[in-house]
Amino acid sequence: MLEDKNQEKTSLEKLGEFGLIEHLTKDFKIERKSTLKGIGDDAAVLDFKDKKTVISTDLLIEGVHFDLAYMPLKHLGYKAVMVNLSDIYAMNATATQVTISIAVSNRFPLEALEELYAGVATACKTYNVDLVGGDTTSSKTGLMISVTSIGEANEEDIAYRSGAKPNDLLVVSGDLGAAYMGLQVLEREKEVFKVNPNSQPDLEPYSYIVERQLKPEARKDIIELLKKLDVRPTSMIDISDGLSSEILHLSKSSGLGIDLYEDKIPLDPTVIAACEEFKVDSTLVALSGGEDYELLFTIDQKEFLKIKGNPNLTVVGHTTGKEEGAFLISRNNTKIPLTAQGWNSFTE
Amino acid sequence: MLEDKNQEKTSLEKLGEFGLIEHLTKDFKIERKSTLKGIGDDAAVLDFKDKKTVISTDLLIEGVHFDLAYMPLKHLGYKAVMVNLSDIYAMNATATQVTISIAVSNRFPLEALEELYAGVATACKTYNVDLVGGDTTSSKTGLMISVTSIGEANEEDIAYRSGAKPNDLLVVSGDLGAAYMGLQVLEREKEVFKVNPNSQPDLEPYSYIVERQLKPEARKDIIELLKKLDVRPTSMIDISDGLSSEILHLSKSSGLGIDLYEDKIPLDPTVIAACEEFKVDSTLVALSGGEDYELLFTIDQKEFLKIKGNPNLTVVGHTTGKEEGAFLISRNNTKIPLTAQGWNSFTE
Repeated sequence: MLEDKNQEKTSLEKLGEFGLIEHLTKDFKIERKSTLKGIGDDAAVLDFKDKKTVISTDLLIEGVHFDLAYMPLKHLGYKAVMVNLSDIYAMNATATQVTISIAVSNRFPLEALEELYAGVATACKTYNVDLVGGDTTSSKTGLMISVTSIGEANEEDIAYRSGAKPNDLLVVSGDLGAAYMGLQVLEREKEVFKVNPNSQPDLEPYSYIVERQLKPEARKDIIELLKKLDVRPTSMIDISDGLSSEILHLSKSSGLGIDLYEDKIPLDPTVIAACEEFKVDSTLVALSGGEDYELLFTIDQKEFLKIKGNPNLTVVGHTTGKEEGAFLISRNNTKIPLTAQGWNSFTE
Repeated sequence: MLEDKNQEKTSLEKLGEFGLIEHLTKDFKIERKSTLKGIGDDAAVLDFKDKKTVISTDLLIEGVHFDLAYMPLKHLGYKAVMVNLSDIYAMNATATQVTISIAVSNRFPLEALEELYAGVATACKTYNVDLVGGDTTSSKTGLMISVTSIGEANEEDIAYRSGAKPNDLLVVSGDLGAAYMGLQVLEREKEVFKVNPNSQPDLEPYSYIVERQLKPEARKDIIELLKKLDVRPTSMIDISDGLSSEILHLSKSSGLGIDLYEDKIPLDPTVIAACEEFKVDSTLVALSGGEDYELLFTIDQKEFLKIKGNPNLTVVGHTTGKEEGAFLISRNNTKIPLTAQGWNSFTE
């Protein structure tokens, strides 16, 4: 579908590397005061003055992290930025710049990369980050995207994974499991399409969960909300590999046990319905599904009144003492050790 | 050769992503004061105080940028860091941190990645940069490496491509064309090996040029030398795609013409000998060969006495007026327009 069978499409060979990166980035504007120099030199130059610099990087590989059979390139460009910005917000920092590098088979036409960069542009504009650099090269097969995000924060605001204190409340933003169930729906439609290419899928009932898979949002709004509410998280992480895996990271880094209450896990009704349809346990999906890009954090109990009743935030548990381990307290009050069922790209 | 045919090798599946990155990075130490937090959280945290932050990123793809048939993995790890640090030095900045992301087929054993990271470790130690982050994931085929380098500089020291003034001197560090000729030797030996796997290549006469290809050095020493000599370049770029292409970048960014004198181009005797053996023109090799990772910069004529006679620096030309174009002044005094013959990964 994406290869250059249409002769009207523009081949990448014609442009070459410099022409390509210039063409793809010509409409990107510098909006941040901290960007002194963006694309167009050996390196970008940034000025964070008395703030600290925060940096994170991710690789997205075709066939491993995304499937172009159902992932539109524009969405992919958007999602690649989101996945990375989410790591900056997970430090309770403000994302300010990104660099994007792509390696792409020269069978992709220019128009495909324009779509990808249109998604990147929308993400940059919506989240107020500048594209300041990158690399464009060919690959032997398929598409891969490397994103580096840069952010800034006052030192006292930075939330590390290691900062949780005993008896802190464990809080999660939004709801969980939707991206994973969206992926199940898309995978099912792909199989149906293989058997009957004329089938017209009705994805309407699944629009929320499919959108959570194809166009996730990083929770910049939660960082702003916490600032507004004057709540300073003691520790924080983003949920990319499933709630269970992230709780284990906080527990290990902070050297504390954590109790998670099954009946508190926030689930959207469409996730519950999809879980019933696919005959999977919704708690398991929230624990191990991944790609939610919600924020998981701990706060001092004294802060509870500030967040109480906020529809974006749910208290799902609390930290316990040293070496007490991380547990799920099930609906029938059984204590089950949490295990890292998070996604491992090296196993099939 | 590098795939897991030996059952004693350790498969990546066993470790998983978190185990793998922990294992590969456990011996890396934080040396820089500016690194507040390295690997182990959602993002690294850096503190550049009143200095500016400089950032650059590169992708290296197996089969496009390197061939594991003759590139040892340890050298590859080293070179991946060098290629990227070179961009930081090309801003007249000090490199301070790197992040490394790798995507690798799970047919690579753990021991292969340990070799790669041993090269990264040597590079970090030698160049005094901290490894502060990265991503490790599987690929469908082969190996790819994404490096982001971070550096710091005083604002007034930063050398952009755009800063050259009319009648500045054009200066190049080291010598040119060796990495390209080293590649020709390695490619030839690979072909010989295909025909006769028992052949023992004698690379001794080519040791300098082969080393320039397999283990290039970024010119941190030149940045330090310029500081010591109290020379502030007006513009600067690193030579990754060949002298011609980089001169055109300086010319375009600074909006000036540039004259390059063929008889001034610094060539090592072994490069000249190899060019004769391979029947290629040594000037063409210097202009278009690439991968030299030398620095090309302009200085005010008044600075000439400070660099005169320094064996590391050669004046190869000068800037001219606006819209005068970039030219090679040949040995027989012909003026030939420079064209970007630099490397384009999208053409075969």
